[in-house]
Amino acid sequence: MGKNYAVGIDLGGTNLRVGIVGSDGRVKKSLFSEIGKDKSVEAVLKLISSKINELKSLIKVRLVGCGCGIPGIIDQKRGFLYSSPNLPLWVNLPILSLLEKKIKMKVVADNDVNMFALAELIYGAGKGKENLIAVTLGSGIGGGLIIDGKIFHGDHGFAGEVGHMIVEPDGAKCLCGGRGCWEQYAASNAFRNLIDHLPRDAYRRIVSLAGEDLSTLTPLFMSKLAGDGNQDAKALWDLFGRYLGIGIASLVNILGISTVVIGGGITDSWDLFINETLSEISKRTYKETYGRLQLVKSSLGGETGIVGAASAIFKVKD
Amino acid sequence: MGKNYAVGIDLGGTNLRVGIVGSDGRVKKSLFSEIGKDKSVEAVLKLISSKINELKSLIKVRLVGCGCGIPGIIDQKRGFLYSSPNLPLWVNLPILSLLEKKIKMKVVADNDVNMFALAELIYGAGKGKENLIAVTLGSGIGGGLIIDGKIFHGDHGFAGEVGHMIVEPDGAKCLCGGRGCWEQYAASNAFRNLIDHLPRDAYRRIVSLAGEDLSTLTPLFMSKLAGDGNQDAKALWDLFGRYLGIGIASLVNILGISTVVIGGGITDSWDLFINETLSEISKRTYKETYGRLQLVKSSLGGETGIVGAASAIFKVKD
Repeated sequence: MGKNYAVGIDLGGTNLRVGIVGSDGRVKKSLFSEIGKDKSVEAVLKLISSKINELKSLIKVRLVGCGCGIPGIIDQKRGFLYSSPNLPLWVNLPILSLLEKKIKMKVVADNDVNMFALAELIYGAGKGKENLIAVTLGSGIGGGLIIDGKIFHGDHGFAGEVGHMIVEPDGAKCLCGGRGCWEQYAASNAFRNLIDHLPRDAYRRIVSLAGEDLSTLTPLFMSKLAGDGNQDAKALWDLFGRYLGIGIASLVNILGISTVVIGGGITDSWDLFINETLSEISKRTYKETYGRLQLVKSSLGGETGIVGAASAIFKVKD
Repeated sequence: MGKNYAVGIDLGGTNLRVGIVGSDGRVKKSLFSEIGKDKSVEAVLKLISSKINELKSLIKVRLVGCGCGIPGIIDQKRGFLYSSPNLPLWVNLPILSLLEKKIKMKVVADNDVNMFALAELIYGAGKGKENLIAVTLGSGIGGGLIIDGKIFHGDHGFAGEVGHMIVEPDGAKCLCGGRGCWEQYAASNAFRNLIDHLPRDAYRRIVSLAGEDLSTLTPLFMSKLAGDGNQDAKALWDLFGRYLGIGIASLVNILGISTVVIGGGITDSWDLFINETLSEISKRTYKETYGRLQLVKSSLGGETGIVGAASAIFKVKD
């Protein structure tokens, strides 16, 4: 059987990556571009289409279709996008038909973390596994569940919203309208919530370093501080690791899935939090569960999104 | 096609129910017995076998096999029982081969809540659905997940341990060794933990009613108190409902499954907690998720366990 090729699209809130990917998972060629100010549906679809045309003129292969990962909630069966927090104009769209009309190919559209999970299943941490939990730590926490070798969408595409698992019932307000959601304690904005758990003097020292503007307490800033030996920053990373572990413990207790892969830029600070994460999980799961846990950071790199998206179309073609 | 018959076994920590069930879900005949003091594997298997023989002498039908629901963690693929909190002698057993040897039939052994979930899928709240979350409120909280029409076991049979989802990171100690597990806040033992969330004067009044012995704060006792108009008891049921809702909100956010069925004796007090449960879920889920939620109490009655267990063997035979 010859190799097949497909287009993979990884759409983010600010950037777009489009590539031609082989059925062996190799990226033949990919293009990266910023989305720019106009994030309307029409403008972004036009950008996607022009990038695909550019790729087609560079690489002459027959394409079996196009997989598209989108950072939003998608009812994959109906091809319907409910909303996308980072693309506020993308609300209640028949996304599948819009894409197919624009790029004139068979399309599979799905949530970006689902595409990431699929790539990890086929080429990464989940190779040879039937089940996988994928978690991405970004501005929120995304989740993708692989069950029996397939992306699990739930009844209407809402499966995997793990960032809104509740870890502190009376905790920090979340964008979803709830309180104490996991993504308030183990993603980009975690540190401004975690400082409330510090002793008062440590709290004061951190706030004064932040110049009173808590939005400066980014993972990157906290990682530099910890790297410089700042003990308060280290204590905060311990708390971050603790809450990451609490969430993962709940997920593996609920799902009984042993393979958990973590993606997202915050994994650059892996060594600052992972010990605390593992310690927390070991305290909160059965010994058999903990003994079998394979908790790893993603090692597939920046093109995982397009590889996963293309894989989705190969899966359909199988 | 003629009707098939199978044996269904519902094994609990204190009681055993064994029945002959038709492939239409009808119970032809069932026998109930107490397990007695000797809960050794040998004694219980003997009791099971004698009850099956009794049934066979009463009802003359050809039996296609036997499904057995056990309150413990079972690796269904390997037929291996890890442990059963209510049958402490049942640890690390090749349960499937032990059962098959004893009762000389094809056997499917699975967790009791999984069998309950299967019965609900086929004959109850999940009729016509692909996915279902089953939750039982007893001395702990049990869970059974139906995904794509099948019981989901996870990698090694540990799926559905929803009672050990963490809802209060620094909360009450749990038998599992962890802290703040869901089953400490929305099952039999919840009230002795929930009283800590009461204002001090209400706390004192409840403790004095309990005669200082907090183990008297059972759901039944609290339900009677609330029925008599006791405001502190009503406040505690509100808290119970709140934590039940927090856990269900997390489950539906993670799994994107709309059908949730609740079983167990505590559902007799449904009206005392359900409003608070729904209110909590509505605050903590997407409006689409809440709009689609079908949260119901089980209506299948006391023979659900044997019906579910028998269904498991019919499913295998399909």
